[in-house]
Amino acid sequence: MYELYYWPGLQGRGEFVRLALEDAGAEYVDVARRATDEGGGVPAMMRLLRSERAAVIPFAPPFLKAGDLIISQAANILFYLGPRLGLAPEEEGARMLANGLQLTIADVVAEAHDTHHPIASDLYYEDQKDAARLNASAFIRQRMPKYLGYFERILTRNPRGDGQIIGAAITYVDLSLFQLIEGLAYAFPRAMARFETHYPALARLRDAVAARPNIARYLASERRIAFNETGIFRRYPELDEDTA
Amino acid sequence: MYELYYWPGLQGRGEFVRLALEDAGAEYVDVARRATDEGGGVPAMMRLLRSERAAVIPFAPPFLKAGDLIISQAANILFYLGPRLGLAPEEEGARMLANGLQLTIADVVAEAHDTHHPIASDLYYEDQKDAARLNASAFIRQRMPKYLGYFERILTRNPRGDGQIIGAAITYVDLSLFQLIEGLAYAFPRAMARFETHYPALARLRDAVAARPNIARYLASERRIAFNETGIFRRYPELDEDTA
Repeated sequence: MYELYYWPGLQGRGEFVRLALEDAGAEYVDVARRATDEGGGVPAMMRLLRSERAAVIPFAPPFLKAGDLIISQAANILFYLGPRLGLAPEEEGARMLANGLQLTIADVVAEAHDTHHPIASDLYYEDQKDAARLNASAFIRQRMPKYLGYFERILTRNPRGDGQIIGAAITYVDLSLFQLIEGLAYAFPRAMARFETHYPALARLRDAVAARPNIARYLASERRIAFNETGIFRRYPELDEDTA
Repeated sequence: MYELYYWPGLQGRGEFVRLALEDAGAEYVDVARRATDEGGGVPAMMRLLRSERAAVIPFAPPFLKAGDLIISQAANILFYLGPRLGLAPEEEGARMLANGLQLTIADVVAEAHDTHHPIASDLYYEDQKDAARLNASAFIRQRMPKYLGYFERILTRNPRGDGQIIGAAITYVDLSLFQLIEGLAYAFPRAMARFETHYPALARLRDAVAARPNIARYLASERRIAFNETGIFRRYPELDEDTA
């Protein structure tokens, strides 16, 4: 039984972990979304973050409690969970490649966050709107195509077929690519309008992940929080633009 | 024999890997710093980045070639090298904790970079100076103390002593903390003026790492590139401020 700790009310970085747990049908508790009187809620998360018992506590959510071990950082959690959930390559070398891809996803996720918070994450969006517009424009024109083009290229080059980005079977990296694409499409519908044309293999991968039975059930459930303007991917129309 | 690939002329994210290789006395080639007519230079790095041979090529430097394996992302490279260089904890659980700490270092490094490039990494600093000043101020006042306070707390709580952040021996995470502290002190000398007072355990760790024979030799050699204004940590006096 795993315990996932993440801010309730937004998908955020916790969602990359949720997708892996859900796809594998793993038993887990999403602790901060539980009722406070059932031992859940943000207070339970804060208790653990401020705990004096563990030597190494996380800097920030998400983190996963697996027995006595408290693992922080989404990519690290997925590296740990991957083999246990049957969602990682078998060999060490391929796991390193998967982790490199996952950390590259983490980089573009951080850049997507910075489009609306380029000055400071603890200032309001409204107080950094001008800088946000400039940042988002550079993200949409340079960075997003560079990252998506990269993932499309790696996907289509997979010698085991382009149904997954690494090896012969779906891994947590594919689930994270699904989430990245969905997030970008939510935040930047105009900039992503021609996504299927430019990135056909990624589009097929996204559809294939969405059709996996456990993922489809999860997405239709109330456990899937809707995208919203407190998460990483935010729909602020003034930050979106048409692209070629 | 390892091959490290990173931009020549700056420490950047490659430096976290170099410190581990140097501390362990590992044999490695810093490929892009080799002469072009000896098969080195940026062209050699670009050939590999554009290679059609490997299925998974990196998105960006740094990357490490170890035999046929090409590993990207500094934290991932260190996760791979750590046990091989005797610079990682023995147990899987402790390695996960080390990786979580390393990824937290990667986060603050990315935030330190964004102080001078808050709008776009491919625009000049001069074209984003106003936003940079706002970003740097928030970084110095909120983020830097939050991260340093966190690492100081974890360090002093280590049940095996505060000579290293995890376990009973120095790991690559300690070497990276040294680099983080040196970088922040270079970029923000005024903001870091009271570092030793506020973070005494981190200051001792920094000194202990600097005094390790292989590290001391490396720092005094010409292999150590000096901090400069093309790297992550840049000394722009207008971005620095006094703190309490």
